Amino acid sequence: MSFKATVLTIFPEMFPGPLGLSLAGRGLSEGRWSLDVRDIRDWASDKHRSVDDTPAGGGAGMVMRADVLASAIDAASPAGDTRPRLLMSARGRPLDQEWVRRIADGGGVLLVAGRFEGVDERLITARNLEEVSVGDVILSGGEIAAMVVIDAVVRLLPGVMGNPKSAVEESFAAGMLEYPQYTRPKVFEGHPIPEVLTSGDHAKIAAWRRAEALKLTRERRPDLLAGRESTKSDD
Amino acid sequence: MSFKATVLTIFPEMFPGPLGLSLAGRGLSEGRWSLDVRDIRDWASDKHRSVDDTPAGGGAGMVMRADVLASAIDAASPAGDTRPRLLMSARGRPLDQEWVRRIADGGGVLLVAGRFEGVDERLITARNLEEVSVGDVILSGGEIAAMVVIDAVVRLLPGVMGNPKSAVEESFAAGMLEYPQYTRPKVFEGHPIPEVLTSGDHAKIAAWRRAEALKLTRERRPDLLAGRESTKSDD
Repeated sequence: MSFKATVLTIFPEMFPGPLGLSLAGRGLSEGRWSLDVRDIRDWASDKHRSVDDTPAGGGAGMVMRADVLASAIDAASPAGDTRPRLLMSARGRPLDQEWVRRIADGGGVLLVAGRFEGVDERLITARNLEEVSVGDVILSGGEIAAMVVIDAVVRLLPGVMGNPKSAVEESFAAGMLEYPQYTRPKVFEGHPIPEVLTSGDHAKIAAWRRAEALKLTRERRPDLLAGRESTKSDD
Repeated sequence: MSFKATVLTIFPEMFPGPLGLSLAGRGLSEGRWSLDVRDIRDWASDKHRSVDDTPAGGGAGMVMRADVLASAIDAASPAGDTRPRLLMSARGRPLDQEWVRRIADGGGVLLVAGRFEGVDERLITARNLEEVSVGDVILSGGEIAAMVVIDAVVRLLPGVMGNPKSAVEESFAAGMLEYPQYTRPKVFEGHPIPEVLTSGDHAKIAAWRRAEALKLTRERRPDLLAGRESTKSDD
């Protein structure tokens, strides 16, 4: 059975959107993964199909109702469905590639795209939603964030990427940012490709790349190295 | 003049996609911002419309050519265009809301959606691209990441959000994660809304929310508080 992504949203027409093209789109049409998009409004109980209401205690914005969302989740993910349930949320755990890999290794995922004003806290607890975030920013809703997660996950599924080696050699695979890349032309606006890369000396090239990746990671993201450098002595 | 977002991509058909709906879509159709999407392939010089080539020094994947991208950028952003130029990249600076606000305060932005295998480093330097990231994950391309940036930015533009107060009371506005939200029904699956929120005592409610936000931030994202707590004594 292929990987199944279920998305709960009030904008079902946003999907597949960009996920219908490129790598993810090809994987989708080839059946490497499937997409199940459901409209949360189908579970509203009033004639206006309301899914939110004003915040208890006052304040701006609207809050998504626990009861409506619970019905939507229960219908999309009945008892026995062991897929992780994610809530796209600015309060959530920041994404990382190791987490993406774990999701890709499972049978699928359910993503709740709440409007970003908020979701009733009781729903998050009662339905065991894991809050995940695509950065310390506020979006108008969780839909595009859900697309980030799905794109990151499906490219790791078997058969989706043309060259599986790409998944190994890139940023974060070694806990570091990726080294600088160059391609033709040999000289661009007076700047040649670094000589070592055209030397044909594979050991030298590997050493240069590792050194550049380490330098870049130290400069930009020392946090990625913090754990490693204290536990490993070979850096 | 309204805010102008220019996107350079090899998948122009992905846009506006989700940005054509919801808040961003309404803002777009009302002229609060404009979207200029350009196909990088229009600047390729061969009949296959190639934009990438194999990495110098070997390795998996393909690298986007500096010369093709430079032509595309120069055409989209002629001399005098002072908009920031972003490259969506896993090596980039993680997004934060303060940065988003600065972008929103400017006249627009140019976003380069590279395929995520890499972009020739000489182009990044020569065209002064600022690398930004939506998390420590690898995507199949920068398009969905560019949508994250645009969605975050355009909702802050004048007239886009229904209630501008929403922008103030949410996560990160105070350097903290947002407090838990609740709405009707009063009791959900046996769980009532916390009593304080229905007390009508506004000072108590504000104090409870602040305490909850602080607790949540300490638990989940102590990094957000690190700078604040060392420089301020009133926490």
